[in-house]
Amino acid sequence: CALQCQRFLISKVGEDWVFLILLGLVMALVSWAMDFAIATCLQAQKWMYGGLDTNVLLQYMAWVTYPTVLITFSAGFTQILAPQAVGSGIPEMKTILRGVVLKEYLTLKTFVAKVIGLTCALGSGMPLGKEGPFVHIASMCAALLSRFLSLFGGFYENEARNIEMLAAACAVGVGCCFAAPIGGVLFSIEVTSTFFAVRNYWRGFFAATFSAFIFRVLAVWNKDEETITALFKTRFRLDFPFDLQELPAFAVIGIASGFGGALFVYLNRKIVQFMRRQKAINRFLMKKRLLFPALVTLIISTLTFPPGFGQFMAGQLTQKDTLVTLFDNQTWAKQGINDEFEYLGILEAWLHPRSNVFVTLVVFILMKFWMSALATTIPVPCGAFMPVFVIGAAFGRLVGESMAAWFPDGIHTDSNIYRIVPGGYAVVGAAALSGAVTHTVSTAVIVFELTGQISHILPVMIAVILANAVAQSLQPSLYDSIIRIKKLPYLPELGWGHHEKYNVRVEDIMVRDIRYVTLNCKYRDLQQVLHSTKMKNLPLVESAESMILLGSIERAQVGALLSAQLSPHRRLMALRQKALPEDGHRLSDSSIRFQISTETSSGTPARAALRKPLKPALKRVPSSPADSPPAGSTDHTGIALKSLFCANAATEPTEAQGTAYHKAKRVRISIVEEMILGDKMTPTEIREWEEQQLDQLVDFSSAKIDPAPFQLVEHTSLHKTHTIFSLLGLDHAFVTSIGRLVGMVSLKELRKAIEGSLTGKGVKVRPPLASFRDSTASTSEADTTALHQLWDRHQHHHMPREAGPGGDEDDDTPK
Amino acid sequence: CALQCQRFLISKVGEDWVFLILLGLVMALVSWAMDFAIATCLQAQKWMYGGLDTNVLLQYMAWVTYPTVLITFSAGFTQILAPQAVGSGIPEMKTILRGVVLKEYLTLKTFVAKVIGLTCALGSGMPLGKEGPFVHIASMCAALLSRFLSLFGGFYENEARNIEMLAAACAVGVGCCFAAPIGGVLFSIEVTSTFFAVRNYWRGFFAATFSAFIFRVLAVWNKDEETITALFKTRFRLDFPFDLQELPAFAVIGIASGFGGALFVYLNRKIVQFMRRQKAINRFLMKKRLLFPALVTLIISTLTFPPGFGQFMAGQLTQKDTLVTLFDNQTWAKQGINDEFEYLGILEAWLHPRSNVFVTLVVFILMKFWMSALATTIPVPCGAFMPVFVIGAAFGRLVGESMAAWFPDGIHTDSNIYRIVPGGYAVVGAAALSGAVTHTVSTAVIVFELTGQISHILPVMIAVILANAVAQSLQPSLYDSIIRIKKLPYLPELGWGHHEKYNVRVEDIMVRDIRYVTLNCKYRDLQQVLHSTKMKNLPLVESAESMILLGSIERAQVGALLSAQLSPHRRLMALRQKALPEDGHRLSDSSIRFQISTETSSGTPARAALRKPLKPALKRVPSSPADSPPAGSTDHTGIALKSLFCANAATEPTEAQGTAYHKAKRVRISIVEEMILGDKMTPTEIREWEEQQLDQLVDFSSAKIDPAPFQLVEHTSLHKTHTIFSLLGLDHAFVTSIGRLVGMVSLKELRKAIEGSLTGKGVKVRPPLASFRDSTASTSEADTTALHQLWDRHQHHHMPREAGPGGDEDDDTPK
Repeated sequence: CALQCQRFLISKVGEDWVFLILLGLVMALVSWAMDFAIATCLQAQKWMYGGLDTNVLLQYMAWVTYPTVLITFSAGFTQILAPQAVGSGIPEMKTILRGVVLKEYLTLKTFVAKVIGLTCALGSGMPLGKEGPFVHIASMCAALLSRFLSLFGGFYENEARNIEMLAAACAVGVGCCFAAPIGGVLFSIEVTSTFFAVRNYWRGFFAATFSAFIFRVLAVWNKDEETITALFKTRFRLDFPFDLQELPAFAVIGIASGFGGALFVYLNRKIVQFMRRQKAINRFLMKKRLLFPALVTLIISTLTFPPGFGQFMAGQLTQKDTLVTLFDNQTWAKQGINDEFEYLGILEAWLHPRSNVFVTLVVFILMKFWMSALATTIPVPCGAFMPVFVIGAAFGRLVGESMAAWFPDGIHTDSNIYRIVPGGYAVVGAAALSGAVTHTVSTAVIVFELTGQISHILPVMIAVILANAVAQSLQPSLYDSIIRIKKLPYLPELGWGHHEKYNVRVEDIMVRDIRYVTLNCKYRDLQQVLHSTKMKNLPLVESAESMILLGSIERAQVGALLSAQLSPHRRLMALRQKALPEDGHRLSDSSIRFQISTETSSGTPARAALRKPLKPALKRVPSSPADSPPAGSTDHTGIALKSLFCANAATEPTEAQGTAYHKAKRVRISIVEEMILGDKMTPTEIREWEEQQLDQLVDFSSAKIDPAPFQLVEHTSLHKTHTIFSLLGLDHAFVTSIGRLVGMVSLKELRKAIEGSLTGKGVKVRPPLASFRDSTASTSEADTTALHQLWDRHQHHHMPREAGPGGDEDDDTPK
Repeated sequence: CALQCQRFLISKVGEDWVFLILLGLVMALVSWAMDFAIATCLQAQKWMYGGLDTNVLLQYMAWVTYPTVLITFSAGFTQILAPQAVGSGIPEMKTILRGVVLKEYLTLKTFVAKVIGLTCALGSGMPLGKEGPFVHIASMCAALLSRFLSLFGGFYENEARNIEMLAAACAVGVGCCFAAPIGGVLFSIEVTSTFFAVRNYWRGFFAATFSAFIFRVLAVWNKDEETITALFKTRFRLDFPFDLQELPAFAVIGIASGFGGALFVYLNRKIVQFMRRQKAINRFLMKKRLLFPALVTLIISTLTFPPGFGQFMAGQLTQKDTLVTLFDNQTWAKQGINDEFEYLGILEAWLHPRSNVFVTLVVFILMKFWMSALATTIPVPCGAFMPVFVIGAAFGRLVGESMAAWFPDGIHTDSNIYRIVPGGYAVVGAAALSGAVTHTVSTAVIVFELTGQISHILPVMIAVILANAVAQSLQPSLYDSIIRIKKLPYLPELGWGHHEKYNVRVEDIMVRDIRYVTLNCKYRDLQQVLHSTKMKNLPLVESAESMILLGSIERAQVGALLSAQLSPHRRLMALRQKALPEDGHRLSDSSIRFQISTETSSGTPARAALRKPLKPALKRVPSSPADSPPAGSTDHTGIALKSLFCANAATEPTEAQGTAYHKAKRVRISIVEEMILGDKMTPTEIREWEEQQLDQLVDFSSAKIDPAPFQLVEHTSLHKTHTIFSLLGLDHAFVTSIGRLVGMVSLKELRKAIEGSLTGKGVKVRPPLASFRDSTASTSEADTTALHQLWDRHQHHHMPREAGPGGDEDDDTPK
């Protein structure tokens, strides 16, 4: 019974929901523990700062040193343990989910580096976020979990399934970071996918909901909260959330956020590029990797020092406190004749005796803007979502307070007075700016879940969509920008409504002059092809005349075929073959061959050692006239170490023993043979032999061939090609016409074409021509021509063309 | 300037956002107008019912007749104008978005029928919904709009773009129906797509938001509302929406809803199947199509008659009022020692003096359940979402009221007393049951947007996910169920976590014995292939030995090739060819040929008339021994109508004139020729000639060939095959191995395999074998064998195999 129970449990381990629950649980615990650690770190800084209030200098030292140390530690730790953990991780996840294998990005080392590095980085109080890294952490967690669970069975060895689980993990990452399951799923889809399988939808929802639930339940159990509520709960009035006439203000927030978001992405990229281009800086920083983070932290924390400049920008507030205050329900600016609003608690930070709240907000927005753009370039695990979110909230608040000051009694002129709620504007601004930077619409859902109120749905949606429209037309998203900076393999999105892309066809962008391998080619052709192209996948065609595509073969495979053909080992075989008729008996029991030099007898480096003496020999005697026949050359084998090798050969086990050992032996013996015989061949002979070998027909039977590479037709539109490439995660596709290979399109061409068609700097795209072509029905015509050629070839090759009544259906025009 | 302005405007018309705004605007207007009309209809019924309160019989007559008339009119109107408008429309949209062309589903006629039919159906007060039909209406609106806008330019002629717009339209449909843009987008994705392009995401959001905005603004302008708010606004408390310990109750709602949803789908299907199977009923109903709707309406409205049985189930409330009362903030059941709760306004309907609210709710749920399942089978435009939503809300309310009665002072035992909010349970129940019936998670988002509160996010998510888990394991979704009933071409979803599907491969399910067309085949082969298979697409291979797949050719094309070869027209040509040496001059100017009978001279029916006399001739003289040479037979042409035809021929324009006219003439003349000559050939001659023609090689140059049909490899997993089929909307795919055709997989096989692997009645799937195979690395092996064959063939065919040192690399084992 126990056995049955165990078997039942193990079979359950393979089910998706078990995996998802485990993933959600682990991530919720990680998220909660990290939040706790970060809060403790920030508390410690505040405590230090508060305790030293007698001496401003000491206070400053504490305020500045603490984050500098933390950031430096984070940068150093990440650098040493796993440099892959640096940055957001969303660009890498996007690439991985496209099917590209990025090594080391999903390992335990990176996980540890990211978790600890992120905790320290956020604990420093710098304007950094945790959303992006959390997507990465959740993905690593899923990868590790599936590797762990595969110990119980082979359910987790499937590649496709693991990719599906990674997609769910991304949702969990966002979900448990903000306790926003729906927004998490949507955000992760928008940010990481180009095509989304709806059947994976429930996975994300399930895991993210469970994770968010556990994350919030932990807060309840820890007595932080009375029950499960939103992270940044707001209490705006429900009956009249906003007036219709306020909508233009929301639209303004959206448009301004769009420009701001594009500017942020631009600034961020320019900073990275500036650091890279300035060679002097670059070299210096490469040597002292930890100097840059320390310097940036120093600057930023100096500027936020509360008794200094920080007093004008609410510098003492942590990111969380800032958000809580910005989403506050009250109106900060003076309202008509009403009594002065009292800034209580943490709200006090926004009040400056010698200025008003508008100045504080403007300074906050401007300073935080460049600080965030700068801080996110530090090589520590960090995201940019949260800083941008805060800036957006502050901007929204600014607009809201202005509106409140402008219309002290609200705009609505009916019986009831509904005052303007600046907190609502902050919510709108936060969603709009973060949406603009990440090019997502789902930030709208995230703010609803974060604030626990959905009453501002229309303003938020309008602002987010406008912000996206503006930002998308100006700059790529922050993640795409990082992908380009890091030169990860990517495929740009097709822009909004550029309908000319429907008129560009594959034939306009494809590479026509491609190298190929024919089925009946010689090794010499392989060599030529390898020299003439750098393509990673070579098409295999039936013959140069027919050009019928049979499959594709990897470059490495072609190289392996070639080197196998020219291997010294085969050269030896050839020699033996020639020698056989003369000296058949002696060669047949070749185990009594001896080696010439002692150093090659020592196992593994034998092959490496072997290659070395050959090349110099080739160089030294470039045109040796020696043409002595290799036959009989085996006679001159050295007998120097006969006894040593004989002993070896004598102890050689029979076939019955372990084959691995046997094989190793055989390799060693044959290497030894090569040495013996190869040495006997003069370089000229070798070259001759190689020339001879190159003239042989290639035997593809040992090569691994992709039997069905993806094929497109010349008339496929760019739009459809893009769809197919992103749907199937292709890297290249062959263009065929009725079986015949006519060209190839790779990611590179596609990228060029899309960027060309988008920016107007079209590379090989000819939309005018293409649109002209569109009107004439050339499709069937070109097909027909191609087919005709093929048909003709067949007619001529296989059988004589029949002369008769069958071939003249074009003469039927009566005149 | 005006011209430039006009050109600018026209160029703008092609942009996506203009289209989406127009679509949103139109749909919002349609939705609002329909809501207004429906409300007026319902008001009229209430007014009639209220005005006749002196006589119960009259009251009953009014209560029953009114909906019966409306439903009958709706059914009749739809039946006459466009039967495609019947039902929800979501199943059809799902099929259309998969790439299947369903005729007449997106026409103006259907649009009008659906809008008017739906208004009448909903105005009758039956338990019917408007969500599904709205998806259909929005799609039709998009199709019509794009057809209208294409008058200004060719932007809307692209198929791919129109499909993208249809996907956005589905979102608009849901969005403007519930004023729920986010939920609308998500619901439409879940319901209609299998793979979703994230780049279309913004389109849906943009259009749905705009539509929802206009829809709600219209309500504000109409003074129905003070400002833009949710449709069914709730006012639950924000600070403590629910207790952690209430979560099990929410989970129970979710699980029960899952079973309920599956039962609903089952019941709905059984009713449809019962009506179809009972031949007597079926025949009767087919004759009197309007009887069934009238009968069902009669039964349902009789049962809801308020003074009758309706008093036990709040029968007098409309669907909208029911929802408003169910989402009510107050607790209906008695709470401890507190004063009796007063049922005010429409809430009164739930109170029955001789029973309590629990009984009313239970009766309501039970009655509405079967009523809704029955009502949605009526052949009128109607959806099932809203009725199910109401039932779910009632069920949630029932649980909530029970909880409130059980824990009068709430569960929480701390300082504050937080009473249980039964309205929150109603929200959870509504989301869970509608999620279970439609198999969607996004109903959660819809309820947040409908109620304007998101505070119950976790209970709702938990309940919806549990309901989905239960329902999906028991029954297909309502829409999939309808797809199956209607036998629309579909591809079932892969179930939850059935990992064996990763181990089934294409080779297990593919059809190996397929008919093909070779490039060098004869017409006789084409004939044979057409007779032996019913495949719609025939593979075109190079030759029967090589089996290299070159393309695919449609069955119709093959038929056309064959009939062209055997056409009487070509027969005539053959005759002319033979006659040419003897009578060359006269045949060269064949325009002076005359026709035999007068009736064929009248344009279009000529061809049809021509075919008729031929067949009887064949039958009548099955073995005529006449073997007279056809040469010179043209001499015996009738001269009867020489003058008539001569005039015709004389007026024939030259090549310089309109070619269309010219062609038509030529066709007519050649038909006439055929008549003349065909008549002269005896049936035996014809058969002989045909036999001769069939032996000729096929000339594919006039056929349209798909030059790159989709190819799979034998080792592709079922999972990946499913992905590719649903991604690319394929109907069939050829299985190739290094260019060679080895099999074919069509939707049918895939469907069988998936349903087999899911239900255990596996048709051709052999998971045990497949999983065994998985462990052995047969992949490369099989490839190699196949390649070897091909290679061998080439070696043998094209050149003599070289004997030499190249072919014996396997002999290198020293021994």
